Amino acid sequence: MFGITPSARLRPSPYFEATLKEGVCAFTTYNHMLMPTSYGHPLEEYWRLINGVSQWDVAVERQVQLRGPDAGKLAQILAPRDLSKCNVGQGKYVPLCNHQGVLINDPILLKLADDLYWLSIADSNIWFWARAIAAERGLRVEVSEPDVSPMAIQGPKAVDVVAHVCGEWIRDLKYFWFRETQIQGIPVVVARSGWSKQGGYEIYLRDGTKGTQLWNIFREAGAPWGIGPGNPNWSERVESGLISFGGDTDDQTNPFEVRMGKYIDLHVPDDTIGIQALRRIHAEGPRRHSLGVILDEGEPVVPGFLWNPLFKDGEKVGHLTNTVFSIRVQKNLGFALISRACAVGDRVEALVNGKMERGVLTELPFL
Amino acid sequence: MFGITPSARLRPSPYFEATLKEGVCAFTTYNHMLMPTSYGHPLEEYWRLINGVSQWDVAVERQVQLRGPDAGKLAQILAPRDLSKCNVGQGKYVPLCNHQGVLINDPILLKLADDLYWLSIADSNIWFWARAIAAERGLRVEVSEPDVSPMAIQGPKAVDVVAHVCGEWIRDLKYFWFRETQIQGIPVVVARSGWSKQGGYEIYLRDGTKGTQLWNIFREAGAPWGIGPGNPNWSERVESGLISFGGDTDDQTNPFEVRMGKYIDLHVPDDTIGIQALRRIHAEGPRRHSLGVILDEGEPVVPGFLWNPLFKDGEKVGHLTNTVFSIRVQKNLGFALISRACAVGDRVEALVNGKMERGVLTELPFL
Repeated sequence: MFGITPSARLRPSPYFEATLKEGVCAFTTYNHMLMPTSYGHPLEEYWRLINGVSQWDVAVERQVQLRGPDAGKLAQILAPRDLSKCNVGQGKYVPLCNHQGVLINDPILLKLADDLYWLSIADSNIWFWARAIAAERGLRVEVSEPDVSPMAIQGPKAVDVVAHVCGEWIRDLKYFWFRETQIQGIPVVVARSGWSKQGGYEIYLRDGTKGTQLWNIFREAGAPWGIGPGNPNWSERVESGLISFGGDTDDQTNPFEVRMGKYIDLHVPDDTIGIQALRRIHAEGPRRHSLGVILDEGEPVVPGFLWNPLFKDGEKVGHLTNTVFSIRVQKNLGFALISRACAVGDRVEALVNGKMERGVLTELPFL
Repeated sequence: MFGITPSARLRPSPYFEATLKEGVCAFTTYNHMLMPTSYGHPLEEYWRLINGVSQWDVAVERQVQLRGPDAGKLAQILAPRDLSKCNVGQGKYVPLCNHQGVLINDPILLKLADDLYWLSIADSNIWFWARAIAAERGLRVEVSEPDVSPMAIQGPKAVDVVAHVCGEWIRDLKYFWFRETQIQGIPVVVARSGWSKQGGYEIYLRDGTKGTQLWNIFREAGAPWGIGPGNPNWSERVESGLISFGGDTDDQTNPFEVRMGKYIDLHVPDDTIGIQALRRIHAEGPRRHSLGVILDEGEPVVPGFLWNPLFKDGEKVGHLTNTVFSIRVQKNLGFALISRACAVGDRVEALVNGKMERGVLTELPFL
C-alpha cells in the first residue's frame, strides 16, 4: 500500500473530515475525488453491511446536471433506455453508450423536474460527453456539476435509521425513487438506492459546507442500530454480482455483454446515441458475456491491479475482471468477461499474479 | 498520507515494477493510472533535476490517437491553434477548449503522419470528447488509446544520456520535435519535451511489455551522469511557472487567464470548437489572470488539497491554486488565479489550512 500525494486535481469530499474522525485509512480515486475504501476493520465493516447498517461517503458519485428546456431531450439522446414514462421523483438506472454502442458510464438518472435531470455517475467524465453532444446538436440545455454529494446508508437496518431521521414516509419509497427534503435545515434529496444488495438509501447533500453536520446526524441517530463507517464493499458487491464500470468493463464493452441488456430499449428514438449499434449487436448477439468464477484455491487469492487472462483448455477465452475472497461463501469468487463459447460449468484457468488458478464458471450473482 | 486500494480502474504503468525497485513510496492518480510522486528523498530528487539528470515514469501522459483520412481535420477542429503548417515529426502544445472557450486539456500534439496524430494529454478524458465530436460531425477518423507510455529524461545532463542511448542526432532535435526509432529493438518515439524547464526528452514506449527493459537501459546508460528516479517536481514546476491542468484551472478557466494566449490563433477556421467564444473573450479581455504569490511566512506552508481563497483589502479576489516551499528561492511560492483588478506588487492574504498567510503578487515564472 502506497501513499497518495495531495493535489488540487483530487478533491476531498464534504465528508472528508468526518471520515478522518471515523479512522479512514485507505482511499481510491474516482471522478477526481478521494473515496474511502477502508477503516481498517474489514470483517466488522462487512458484517455491519450484511446484518446491520453502514454509513458510506460516496460523494464521488458526482452529478451531471442537465437544466433547460431541452434537458429531457438531451437525457434521452444520451440514454438508450426509454425515458418517456419517467416521472418527476423517479430514478432510473441508465447505461450510457458511445456511438459504437460501447458503455461509457452507468449512472442513475434522477428526474427532478421536466427541465432538470441529474445523472449520478460512475467513474468517467460525462460532463465533457454531455456538453459535446448538447453543443454539437444545438440543444438549449446547461450541463454543469452542482454542489451535490451523496452519502449512503446501507444494510437491512438502514430503513429504520433513515425513517428515524427523515420520517416514516421513506418506508414507502419505491426502489430508485426519491424526494427533495431537508434534514435539520440541510437541503437533501433522499433516494432509495445504493451500490449494495442489502437495501438502503442515498442522501444527496445539496450544501457541501454541511458534510460533517449531516454525517454526524446519521451517526448519532443510527447508534441504537449499531451504525458504523463503511464503503462500497468489494466482497458484498462481488457476491451480489454488481458490475463496476471501468473495473469490470473495458473500452470495447457493450451493455449486452455485462448483463445490462434489460436496461436497453431498442425502440428509443433514432437520434439516441449508440442505438443503431446496439440494435445491430443485439441482432447479431454479443461476442462476450459475464459469468461468475469460483476458484478451487481455498486460501484468499490477491488479485493485483490488472485484469487476469482467463484460459479454457489452454486457449485464452477472456478475462477475470475481479477476484475477492467471499466472506459468506468462504471461497475466492470473481467475474469472467468471456467468450460466449464458454458456459456455466466449464473448467477454466486464470493467471493471477503469476500463478495459474483453476476454477469453474457459474451463474451470477453468487448470492 | 493514506493508502491507495488496488483497483482495475487504476492501472499501473509499464514502468511500475521498475519504479518499485527504485523505491517509489507515493503516487497520485492521473488519467486512471498511478503516477509516482515520491521516492522518499525530496531534496536529492530536486537537485538531480536541477543539476543532473532525472528519470520519470510519466506513462500517465496517455495518447489520444486520431487515425484516418480526417485525422488532421479533427485535430484542427479540437485545437484553437493553427496546425496548417505543422510538419510530420513536429509537436505543438495545444490548449483544447469546449464550445464556451473553457480549457478542457492542454496536450502536446504530435503529427506522426498526415493521417495519424497523437494528443499526449493532461488529466482529463479527451477520448470521450474527441469521439463525440468525430461521430457528431461524421468524420472518417478512429479515436483510440494506443499502447504508448512516455518516460521522461529531464535535467541539464539529459541530453548526454539520451545521446549516449539514441545517438548524437538527438542533440539537433528542436523543442517539441520528435522522431520514431528503436532502442535495442524496442519501438519508441523520442521527443525533445518534458514537464520541467530544465531541458530533456520524452521517450514514448510503444510496447507496454518492455517497460522494465527500457527503464533499465536508461538507468544503466545514465549511471556515469548520476541518473536517478524522479517525477514531475512540484517545487521546480512552481518556480518555473508551469500550469497543471485541473490543478491550477477550474471548470471556468479559459486559456487567456492562465498565460496560454500565445498558443491560441484567433484566425483558425470557424468550425474549430470554442473559437467564437475565444474571439469574444479576447476582445472583451479575460476577467482573471495568473500571477505569482510570494508568502511572507518563512517556514514551509502545507497547502492541503483544495484551492485557498485569496483576499485583497479584506475582499475575496481569487484563489491561490498551489503553494510550495521553493528549494532555490527558500520562500513559499504559489500561483494566484485572480481578478485582473489585482496587479504585481499588490499585497494579498490567503487562507491556507485555516491560517491567514500574507504575501505579495509577482510576475511568473519565479525563476
